[in-house]
Amino acid sequence: MLLLGKPCVDSIVENYGDVSGVKLCTIGFDNDQWNQYTGSLVRNAQKYGMQCENIVVGDCTPEEFCQIVKDVCARKDVNGVMVQQPLPREYAHAVEFIDVNKDVDCLNPLSVAKLYLGKDGFRPATPLAVINLLDFYKIDLWGKNVVIVGRGNAVGKPLALMCLQRNATVTVCHTKTQNLANVCKQADILITACGVPGLITTNHVTENSIVIDVGLSFVDGKTCGDVSADVYDVCQAVTPVPRGIGPVTCVTLLQNLIKAHNNNK
Amino acid sequence: MLLLGKPCVDSIVENYGDVSGVKLCTIGFDNDQWNQYTGSLVRNAQKYGMQCENIVVGDCTPEEFCQIVKDVCARKDVNGVMVQQPLPREYAHAVEFIDVNKDVDCLNPLSVAKLYLGKDGFRPATPLAVINLLDFYKIDLWGKNVVIVGRGNAVGKPLALMCLQRNATVTVCHTKTQNLANVCKQADILITACGVPGLITTNHVTENSIVIDVGLSFVDGKTCGDVSADVYDVCQAVTPVPRGIGPVTCVTLLQNLIKAHNNNK
Repeated sequence: MLLLGKPCVDSIVENYGDVSGVKLCTIGFDNDQWNQYTGSLVRNAQKYGMQCENIVVGDCTPEEFCQIVKDVCARKDVNGVMVQQPLPREYAHAVEFIDVNKDVDCLNPLSVAKLYLGKDGFRPATPLAVINLLDFYKIDLWGKNVVIVGRGNAVGKPLALMCLQRNATVTVCHTKTQNLANVCKQADILITACGVPGLITTNHVTENSIVIDVGLSFVDGKTCGDVSADVYDVCQAVTPVPRGIGPVTCVTLLQNLIKAHNNNK
Repeated sequence: MLLLGKPCVDSIVENYGDVSGVKLCTIGFDNDQWNQYTGSLVRNAQKYGMQCENIVVGDCTPEEFCQIVKDVCARKDVNGVMVQQPLPREYAHAVEFIDVNKDVDCLNPLSVAKLYLGKDGFRPATPLAVINLLDFYKIDLWGKNVVIVGRGNAVGKPLALMCLQRNATVTVCHTKTQNLANVCKQADILITACGVPGLITTNHVTENSIVIDVGLSFVDGKTCGDVSADVYDVCQAVTPVPRGIGPVTCVTLLQNLIKAHNNNK
């Protein structure tokens, strides 16, 4: 069984090119989970010679919040802009004011439509990280059966479209799927993004399965994915959690940022 | 074997309510295929007491074309606006100027993003017709295996998202799918939208299959779908071509138009 991940991270970073002056800006409210995430973005950006500025917004109206997004997007020193997800309902439309040329997290509806239609544009970092990983290991999707467990807007849905575009036959499963193990067993490539520890067991895989674990949960202080440990002894290849798709996602987001920087030069 | 179609059309029309003053407007270039389609829209609208005005645009720049779209959308007497598809490449962005409240064919990227995200908004008529038909015959999608053959932007992709939202497990197949018959046989509901006459044979169905034929081709002057005739003797239910999903699509588009009219009252 092959553990997938680290060499792909190194390969992406090697291809960064010149990153001097490349800057990400995040905009959000004071919120523990968001602060933790944006903190990690700062550390990651710095690690690779880029910058990340986190703008924490205090009490403001939705209109004021939208104006902040517009103003930040207008800044020449900012190459990519991310807005807190999910936003409170009244603020959610602020994503429409993200400049599509700086929309490194694919949040603006115009970016979303490009993703859906298969047109050039930014793709959200996590599903793009999965594609990067498959590309790195030369795992061709053409004509393959890809089964995706999870239908969220962050991973399941965009990944389904991206795999379709690469000529995979794509099945999307979720909590209402009947006989999940049976469906998963038919996958050449099984991708799970549920956040349910131990969801995928040896019943869901074969010795030929390539398993991409995008799940992320915390059990007894430990980070874990959707795939149970005994699967590792059975399948052909798997991305571990931690140190699997997570680090690939981090460097992929920065890859989007560099792309934004190069596009706007 | 049950033939699906006509009673669903009647049911949709019965629920139209007051249609006085309801008006659709199409905008396109002089083009045989488009003229044929818009001609049928006029006949259909009139049949049910509505109006359809077809604007045929002569030589104009992309900017002028966009301005026409804006001007038509601004008209108080027009409830729904459709723009020729596909448009020549330089004119394609004109769909961004369709008022989302009048976008009865779901062409504006903002409408597309709503479809993708599962938010309220217009859905394209053909996939919505499939959902209408399944609803009418009380064919519940919850937990069912839906196999869609075809991944186009008009039917396959939007239908995949709409079936997912109704809790089906969805598989999308296409020309690169390996062992198509085997995948199709596992469907509770098989939907085909390829335009390849005879693509779906008795090898692709079981006696329990419900088959929705969205294919449309012309062979020796006759209209036909993707499903070969002998399938009708095997499967549980099927939409014929002609007189299957086509007429449901016509009345579904007008249903969208009435919805636009009611929203903007």
